[in-house]
Amino acid sequence: MFRLRQVRIDTLSEHVVFIHEDAVVAGNLGFRPLDRVRVWGRDPRNGGTREIIGVLNFCRDTLVRPDEVGLSEVAFRDLGLEDGSIVQAAHAPAPRSVDLVRSKLWGQQLNEAAFTEILRDVVAHRYSKVELSMFVLACALRPMQLEELVALTKAMIHTGTMLRFPHAPIADKHCIGGVPGNRTTMVVVPILAALGVTVPKTSSRAITSPAGTADTMGVLADVALEPERLYQVIERAGACITWGGALGLAPADDILITVERPMEIDTEAQMVASILSKKKTAGATHALLDIPVGPTAKVRSLEHAQRLAALFQAVARHIDLHLEVAVTEARGPIGWGIGPRLEALDVLAVLDRAIGAPTDLREKSLYLAARILEMIGAVPAGGGYRKAMEALDSGAARAAFQRIIEAQGPQPLPPPAPFCATVPAPTDGRIRSIHCWHMARVAKQAGAPANVSAGVRLLRTVGDIVRQGEPLFEIHALSQAQLDLALEYARSQPELVSFGF
Amino acid sequence: MFRLRQVRIDTLSEHVVFIHEDAVVAGNLGFRPLDRVRVWGRDPRNGGTREIIGVLNFCRDTLVRPDEVGLSEVAFRDLGLEDGSIVQAAHAPAPRSVDLVRSKLWGQQLNEAAFTEILRDVVAHRYSKVELSMFVLACALRPMQLEELVALTKAMIHTGTMLRFPHAPIADKHCIGGVPGNRTTMVVVPILAALGVTVPKTSSRAITSPAGTADTMGVLADVALEPERLYQVIERAGACITWGGALGLAPADDILITVERPMEIDTEAQMVASILSKKKTAGATHALLDIPVGPTAKVRSLEHAQRLAALFQAVARHIDLHLEVAVTEARGPIGWGIGPRLEALDVLAVLDRAIGAPTDLREKSLYLAARILEMIGAVPAGGGYRKAMEALDSGAARAAFQRIIEAQGPQPLPPPAPFCATVPAPTDGRIRSIHCWHMARVAKQAGAPANVSAGVRLLRTVGDIVRQGEPLFEIHALSQAQLDLALEYARSQPELVSFGF
Repeated sequence: MFRLRQVRIDTLSEHVVFIHEDAVVAGNLGFRPLDRVRVWGRDPRNGGTREIIGVLNFCRDTLVRPDEVGLSEVAFRDLGLEDGSIVQAAHAPAPRSVDLVRSKLWGQQLNEAAFTEILRDVVAHRYSKVELSMFVLACALRPMQLEELVALTKAMIHTGTMLRFPHAPIADKHCIGGVPGNRTTMVVVPILAALGVTVPKTSSRAITSPAGTADTMGVLADVALEPERLYQVIERAGACITWGGALGLAPADDILITVERPMEIDTEAQMVASILSKKKTAGATHALLDIPVGPTAKVRSLEHAQRLAALFQAVARHIDLHLEVAVTEARGPIGWGIGPRLEALDVLAVLDRAIGAPTDLREKSLYLAARILEMIGAVPAGGGYRKAMEALDSGAARAAFQRIIEAQGPQPLPPPAPFCATVPAPTDGRIRSIHCWHMARVAKQAGAPANVSAGVRLLRTVGDIVRQGEPLFEIHALSQAQLDLALEYARSQPELVSFGF
Repeated sequence: MFRLRQVRIDTLSEHVVFIHEDAVVAGNLGFRPLDRVRVWGRDPRNGGTREIIGVLNFCRDTLVRPDEVGLSEVAFRDLGLEDGSIVQAAHAPAPRSVDLVRSKLWGQQLNEAAFTEILRDVVAHRYSKVELSMFVLACALRPMQLEELVALTKAMIHTGTMLRFPHAPIADKHCIGGVPGNRTTMVVVPILAALGVTVPKTSSRAITSPAGTADTMGVLADVALEPERLYQVIERAGACITWGGALGLAPADDILITVERPMEIDTEAQMVASILSKKKTAGATHALLDIPVGPTAKVRSLEHAQRLAALFQAVARHIDLHLEVAVTEARGPIGWGIGPRLEALDVLAVLDRAIGAPTDLREKSLYLAARILEMIGAVPAGGGYRKAMEALDSGAARAAFQRIIEAQGPQPLPPPAPFCATVPAPTDGRIRSIHCWHMARVAKQAGAPANVSAGVRLLRTVGDIVRQGEPLFEIHALSQAQLDLALEYARSQPELVSFGF
């Protein structure tokens, strides 16, 4: 018998249970660090029992006393009992579904029921970080056939909540990522909204990149909308650009990401299941998928893009989602900015038709908007581009974006980062390509996305002719230490910017 | 700038850095939970800089104040600065060697230099649990050719310290595990010591089993010997039976085990490299490897055992270790007890030639001792068994064991577990086999190895004829809850004991 103690440590996806080592020694509890522990107690409101499963940390501190059990933030919230309640603790066996993960690791295929059992336990925080890693790597390393991938996708759909809208079509877009900047969503959605298309766009925060759409939109507006507020925003503005994590659309995916992020691994199976389940649960009937292809993008050949596109479309058919794929070119970042604030400035420049607005971001956004307008039948084939350009150049898209921001809750633009350094061109020549992955890493070293004002601002881009010593790009950071780290990384990468004709 | 604060939380293999979320908000530090952080400060003793890398946990508690950085036990010890010292903290990039792990995950082979770089970072606690999991699973899931396995083994040898003894031969033995009980080491080593053979035996604690040799020996004697004390024990008793973890022989392996344990995964590559590097660094010139084969053992066919034996021997040749393999039969546990205390009683019974001592443990130990005596040339071929039996039956082995215990430091035998239940035979018949994995799990559910007195005591074993209702085995536990858990598990496994003729 212990007293419950709230320990305000944020361990993200993992429930951590803190026990004083003296309790273990004195009470013969037979616990060892990292053991899985069940903590339970009586709920005085209804007489029922509430319980959680967590991973054990020993302490010798005043953090918890020997007669207390401490729970990390999420564990305490999930147990739902008052601080000081009487609780009990005992060893807990691993969830049975971990055996399924293990069988997948050894090469067995799983069906929808198996994936559902695994994902339910994941969502209930019954998996430790090590077990989450096992599942992610099992999906990454063991080839998945179509049938298995459909099963995983359906299981992801069924473990989340689902948004529903009365009138089809409901449009959506997604980019598989890997291209820094590239904030087309924030231009495409206003264009579509200006033309009366419903777009309940949910985006993720950065996983391995210096900014996700949710991070960049978060600079301008509140993006943490629960379903109720999202419906209100759609009602008022016809569209939204929000963070999917606040909606519980794919709660398993949100937890798996916490181990995928430190792994810096994006796997195809996980990607297909994750993207399509989120489009489906967001209520979309039609979705356009952007697959950028380039020498340093995630996808590096047209053949690979086509294979991936076919896989996405095959799974989409099984979950009754109309999906089209746009294979786009990526020889470097899209737009000038990399990092939430700098990217948001690009978006505003394009929507405002400002001098110096990034042409590549504008053109790519118009192309994607056009494809969506055509696929939902809003315009005849071939008529999308003109329609999209009218919405942008008339200021209608800017006005629609403002309505979206107002509906979600505007945020004051954060100030520029106080530390800035310029990196010069090492040679004369035409910029042939900019290394997506390395340039993203420069921005991350500078502090993006956690520091929203940090990142990289390109001064020249692919196709430009530069002279040696001319400024190529700026690094923005909130501390000299981070600036130095980013500069050092940039200087150590000879492939960062390639020159040639 | 922060003040250093020791946080007495034991996070085992992982360095955890605690920062108050207010510090992040106020100071624009740009940290996110689970980020990797470098903490450094000046060492007043020599003016140098000391640093550690850790994983960030946010807290909102009094655990650390906004102007403090808290470090978990091992992180604080490794930084080596005083509580209250001035330190700084910044983002740290992942160790470069994680890129090597990632390349292995995608199928590339690694060489000795690459493995050494990875293992050095592992030993320096620069890997998070997620990254440790990546490495373990990369080794588990990607087939390793001989050359790569030799490289891994050599890298493990070079990241540890090495024991050295003046006079060859130095004998050693190892069992690949998977058979509950089976505490032959604690009988074989005294027999060899009685005959004047030097055996610096180092063993592991349980990874996925209800007891390792170090857990069982720990019931009778101190097993946490540093190299200096081990040399003293060898000097006095000619042999030892200690816990390898205290010696730093294979520090990387000791850290990898902290994620392997919750995974409940033993992989062949990891096993070969781990076992052979430990034999080599313990100073052995000759080693006998026991591979038990049985329907529920780790190795289930003679072909598999032979393939594994060939792999062990091929790697052993490359590291200049004389290795022989004993393929033994395992149709169930060896000995009566499963769990540290109950196994220790079996060992004492065999050495004391007590009535009711387990015959299977005695016979297997004699066979293994005989093989070792023959392989090191202490007796002519065919003369080992008789020599070993003389040492055992004359009481010389018991006396040698007592010398080893006295030299290591004797421990009082813990009392029996207070809760005990008997499981009856469900049917009449001859016991054909006992399921190794399930019976081990019964003992683990009962609390072994953390509760040293918990476990299973067989009353009947393979080959015995029993009547329905006759007691088959006992479960020992330190609490009613654990006893119930173990009983429930035992009842839910129809394959636990198989009957037939």
